[in-house]
Amino acid sequence: MSILNPLPERLLLGPGPSNAHPSVLEAMSLPLLGHLDPEFIALLDRVKEGLRTCFGTANAMTLPISATGSAGMEAALVNLLEPGESVVVGINGVFGVRMAEVARRAGAVVTTVEAEWGKTLDANAMAEAIATTKPKVVSFVHAETSTGVCQPVEEIAGAARDAGALVVLDCVTSLAGRPVELDAWGIDAAYSGTQKCLSCPPGLSPVSFSDRAIDVVQNRKTPVQSWFLDLSLLAGYYQGGDGGKRVYHHTAPITATYGLAAGLDRVLEEGLTNRFVRHTAAAERLVAGLEPLGFTPLVDAADRLPMLTSVRLPESVRSIGDGDVRGRLLNEFGIEVGAGLGPLAGEIWRIGLMGENARPEPVDRLLEALRKILD
Amino acid sequence: MSILNPLPERLLLGPGPSNAHPSVLEAMSLPLLGHLDPEFIALLDRVKEGLRTCFGTANAMTLPISATGSAGMEAALVNLLEPGESVVVGINGVFGVRMAEVARRAGAVVTTVEAEWGKTLDANAMAEAIATTKPKVVSFVHAETSTGVCQPVEEIAGAARDAGALVVLDCVTSLAGRPVELDAWGIDAAYSGTQKCLSCPPGLSPVSFSDRAIDVVQNRKTPVQSWFLDLSLLAGYYQGGDGGKRVYHHTAPITATYGLAAGLDRVLEEGLTNRFVRHTAAAERLVAGLEPLGFTPLVDAADRLPMLTSVRLPESVRSIGDGDVRGRLLNEFGIEVGAGLGPLAGEIWRIGLMGENARPEPVDRLLEALRKILD
Repeated sequence: MSILNPLPERLLLGPGPSNAHPSVLEAMSLPLLGHLDPEFIALLDRVKEGLRTCFGTANAMTLPISATGSAGMEAALVNLLEPGESVVVGINGVFGVRMAEVARRAGAVVTTVEAEWGKTLDANAMAEAIATTKPKVVSFVHAETSTGVCQPVEEIAGAARDAGALVVLDCVTSLAGRPVELDAWGIDAAYSGTQKCLSCPPGLSPVSFSDRAIDVVQNRKTPVQSWFLDLSLLAGYYQGGDGGKRVYHHTAPITATYGLAAGLDRVLEEGLTNRFVRHTAAAERLVAGLEPLGFTPLVDAADRLPMLTSVRLPESVRSIGDGDVRGRLLNEFGIEVGAGLGPLAGEIWRIGLMGENARPEPVDRLLEALRKILD
Repeated sequence: MSILNPLPERLLLGPGPSNAHPSVLEAMSLPLLGHLDPEFIALLDRVKEGLRTCFGTANAMTLPISATGSAGMEAALVNLLEPGESVVVGINGVFGVRMAEVARRAGAVVTTVEAEWGKTLDANAMAEAIATTKPKVVSFVHAETSTGVCQPVEEIAGAARDAGALVVLDCVTSLAGRPVELDAWGIDAAYSGTQKCLSCPPGLSPVSFSDRAIDVVQNRKTPVQSWFLDLSLLAGYYQGGDGGKRVYHHTAPITATYGLAAGLDRVLEEGLTNRFVRHTAAAERLVAGLEPLGFTPLVDAADRLPMLTSVRLPESVRSIGDGDVRGRLLNEFGIEVGAGLGPLAGEIWRIGLMGENARPEPVDRLLEALRKILD
């Protein structure tokens, strides 16, 4: 049996991966260069520059971590936090919970500020926790992939910076689909994934660290617990050591980097603003089409992520069964949508219109399939 | 500028990545499935089975970690070691040094047993350190990529098991190029990379853990410091939770998994024994061709890795300059060879004949280019 036996074609409208553009997949079939080859280093430098544009930052330390988005989260927290240090984590979904857990495993003292899943974090509650605990780090999620909530960033980031704290922001689902402005917002560490609005396969985690964050890392009292994710060591390869010479740390994922380069090319050719407009229009078309079928948005209109729409299930779906309807979508129509997670399991679907899929055709294909199943 | 502008063709004869087979690259251009799609789970199960064959094990917990080989090393050590616990690490090259560093960052008490770079570890010295320190874990490198030494495993592993210790083995460069027999050798945790003898791009780290190791992980007193690499959490996705249902942990790298599946298909079609014979023959051809040019093997014949030959540089290379000759090989002939690391920088080259490159043609191409440069 060979991998090249036909795999089914899927329209990936879940929380990610989204469908990769053919130019990305084509780039991933190019022959390998070595990870220290000057041609590869040049390509990597171009990727770093493209990521800076997407992140809205001039941060020198902007690079794709050689693992998936969860490793980007871990990189941000384990580099900035030392055992016994304090962090305030905002939690209104799975990824806030995960941040708190990762910080605890780094030995940090974690204060959580919770909000209902499907709602935004309360900036005043965050400010209060910051004022009370005077944390080294404040950490929250821009685009909560478990609920579809888009968190306003500036007020919380401002409160954190006023208290002298570093700010960590999860941009896994927002990057290249909604404005991300690390420098304007005053963010010190952010991470993302390639399999969402960048329309690349999963496998890399774009991250960006401010100079202030790098300074903190370089002045740690204890080593970063993870050798693989230690920013000071990563800098030797991604920025270069003495004289700019790139120093081996680990073997960078060549093929995934080709894919990310091709994905960034498409993002920059289209222009970020055009891309944001396209995501918003697709989400509006989706919600308008779902409401007549009885689906109701989980999130208030003002707080919705355009690339990930969460909807409460109508009786028509519940009577057939959440899993059964998703199974029919997948097996009969080749369409994947995402289930709810945690307390929202069985309550909602998460429908992604990310990157290349944020267009009318995928929306209409889903709506037509649903009409057939639920009719 | 597009990624699809022609990249130079390289013959990758360094310490990895090696050239990926066209069928692997073709597999990596296939459209994505979701990471919870039953078709993808079936593919992943097939990959796990192929890895078991390569590792010589029946270990259920055999899977590709979603990051490069260094993360596999970290996964092995941080899952098995808790703060304050003792580990004996054999060091005869860069990767032994790295193991010790990773273990220290996990809070372990590290005893190192050193051997000259280019020589094997002394089994008696290891046994003595094991008897003296009664460690929880004994860790060493099967195929030391920094020197080209192949370490005999059984005697050290036996001493470790006699003392009740878990054994961790680095198989990054050996897997699918030389016999690896985890079960026969009594190894509890091993890790590798895809970019060596599996002839896939870098990006995944195949790992395997014995039931005994899993039992230790499940009975830890403290959480694994890395959420991303926590085996108990990984098991929920790679083996399934209650009723076998796969539980989301992180988003698996779909495309890299396609590539690994295709790479494993080729390995199993060829047969491991045929592959080992091919690696040995290629290395012999290389050494026979290099000696008349004045290169001398660093490692005694009995201890050499066939897939990575390290050679001391002749005066003809030193007079031009190590870096200059490698630069000419790369730029004029499209051939990459590896430099020495650490104390061997400027002293040796590391020439990889890995996976698809372990054939007469790559050897002859390198020898011809060297004759032209050094004539």
